[in-house]
Amino acid sequence: MRMDALDTPVAVIDLDRLERNIARFQAYLSQHGIANRPHIKTHKIPQIARMQVAAGAVGITCQKLGEAEVMADAGIDDIFIPYNIIGAAKLERLTALARRVRLSVAADSAAVVAGLGNAMAGTGLELTVLVECDTGMGRCGVQTPAEAVELALLIARTPGLRFGGLMTYPSSPEIGPFMHEAVRLLRDRGIAVERVSGGGTAGMWHAHEHPEITEYRAGMYIYGDRYTLRAGAMQLEECALTIITTVVSRPTPDRGVIDGGSKTFSSDLLGLEGYGLILEYPEARIISLSEEHGVVDFSRCTQRPAVGERVSVIPNHCCVVSNLFDEMVGVRRGDVEVVWRVAARGMVR
Amino acid sequence: MRMDALDTPVAVIDLDRLERNIARFQAYLSQHGIANRPHIKTHKIPQIARMQVAAGAVGITCQKLGEAEVMADAGIDDIFIPYNIIGAAKLERLTALARRVRLSVAADSAAVVAGLGNAMAGTGLELTVLVECDTGMGRCGVQTPAEAVELALLIARTPGLRFGGLMTYPSSPEIGPFMHEAVRLLRDRGIAVERVSGGGTAGMWHAHEHPEITEYRAGMYIYGDRYTLRAGAMQLEECALTIITTVVSRPTPDRGVIDGGSKTFSSDLLGLEGYGLILEYPEARIISLSEEHGVVDFSRCTQRPAVGERVSVIPNHCCVVSNLFDEMVGVRRGDVEVVWRVAARGMVR
Repeated sequence: MRMDALDTPVAVIDLDRLERNIARFQAYLSQHGIANRPHIKTHKIPQIARMQVAAGAVGITCQKLGEAEVMADAGIDDIFIPYNIIGAAKLERLTALARRVRLSVAADSAAVVAGLGNAMAGTGLELTVLVECDTGMGRCGVQTPAEAVELALLIARTPGLRFGGLMTYPSSPEIGPFMHEAVRLLRDRGIAVERVSGGGTAGMWHAHEHPEITEYRAGMYIYGDRYTLRAGAMQLEECALTIITTVVSRPTPDRGVIDGGSKTFSSDLLGLEGYGLILEYPEARIISLSEEHGVVDFSRCTQRPAVGERVSVIPNHCCVVSNLFDEMVGVRRGDVEVVWRVAARGMVR
Repeated sequence: MRMDALDTPVAVIDLDRLERNIARFQAYLSQHGIANRPHIKTHKIPQIARMQVAAGAVGITCQKLGEAEVMADAGIDDIFIPYNIIGAAKLERLTALARRVRLSVAADSAAVVAGLGNAMAGTGLELTVLVECDTGMGRCGVQTPAEAVELALLIARTPGLRFGGLMTYPSSPEIGPFMHEAVRLLRDRGIAVERVSGGGTAGMWHAHEHPEITEYRAGMYIYGDRYTLRAGAMQLEECALTIITTVVSRPTPDRGVIDGGSKTFSSDLLGLEGYGLILEYPEARIISLSEEHGVVDFSRCTQRPAVGERVSVIPNHCCVVSNLFDEMVGVRRGDVEVVWRVAARGMVR
């Protein structure tokens, strides 16, 4: 089947580009001796996770237990969940998962560490716990190298837990002093820091500039999107994910409406102008979205589409698109080769 | 099971409030002799659609064919799709659906009408087509009453199609002159306008102020959200949908992080400040979202939560939340009564 025959809106992955993106970033990290631990939240597809591991990834990163369970079912055996796991229901699932795969998690408080320790007590398991460090993002994470040391010591002395290192996100140029100092303080106390985990697609080609970083978590590098393009981390001809839509209305000479909206692209702007890049009309602007409509301003375009014409959109943010589609269609040179179920989509817990 | 035992994040519907919301708006429309055709995109749950029809709705509104198919499977027999249906794949499904239920659609161009006519040719079916009018929103729709008349005439003379009236969205105070003029022009030509379909939850209590409107499409009135609250259409104690989350991090005295992010609430701002209202901490602000984290500023709160505390969030926009959860949990006075699958979730086509 040709991709032109797919009904719209449809999310399409260029398999040649996907494979090249996986190989290129793996080669870069391997060259610099940095372990690759891709974040599967971007694709949520076990088949792509297996491609990443086959290319050389040491394991994967999942943001939710539910994603990790899907990936474990698919045979992935080394999973990092850089998230504070809290509450009886999740801790029970975490323990079950720790029996099946090499598992590591992150924590940023004594309360979280206590919960993890209680869950592991009496199981005979030893869970690897990294300390999450807030190196400038202002989300989770301990606030100072001294706090990182304190939490590392708590992890190390909690039965059933093993201090596994430090993690941060994203690996911006500012992380250096914090990570350097935390590693130094820990080594001064005789504590080995076996992993320092950084991440982020925007800064992925700078991973080697952080001497502390031993592993890297990137997600979007497999697909690319407008955010990744603006960050300069990828080129347009490397973008592997497009959403094919149909122009369903041309109510005025300047205005068009496509059959993709916030239910197709999400409302994520990430500081960008507009909600996507239309490849056939790069001067057009997707100026507003409702759930099933994208309103496009074609006023800067000399050629303009007719009702029924199909247009391909590079979304602002590929990860959120993966959570909106039950299936992704893999194509090669315009032919449909595979339809992948987004098996870890919608795993809210 | 008590709702306190549900793992987070979880979307919870207060069934008492849901039932009251359905009854209250139905009573209002019935009192004014306006047909109720609720938009099911808000809930995407057949059981709730059946409650709406049982309360007196003449039928339902769906935005996508896939939603309509799910609802037809559930026994709903009168469905309006106010969307330009284009392309062979969708027209084939539309024809199949027209054999099963009383179906109507909207169109805003001759190209769309031609496609609908071709699809119906030779089927023996007669599809009801309303003309979509752009009365100020700037999305789809014919631009003038004269264009509406022209398209109505085209529909009326196309074999297999039946002119079914006019539709617009939203029913803001500005729609009056356009709709009045269009109806007058059509009647002058001897063309009956049996339906004039308006909609929108924000303006729902003003439906009776538009004498032209014969039916009303509202969606959000069943759940309510911050958008509906700001519009003054609902009160906080009527809001039926909350997302229960857990505080997973308190990295600084002012900052907290909850386990709901854009994958839980969506990134929709709709002109509001912040991404949701935390009921237990109304002065708190959800200042940013990543996919699985909501960053909360508690600086205006005298009491602040500890790690592990559960907080309930009224989202900005309830419709998009329904598309992010596979299940909704119905509770009554704190007890879990039912778990509904969001059966029409993710119907992108």
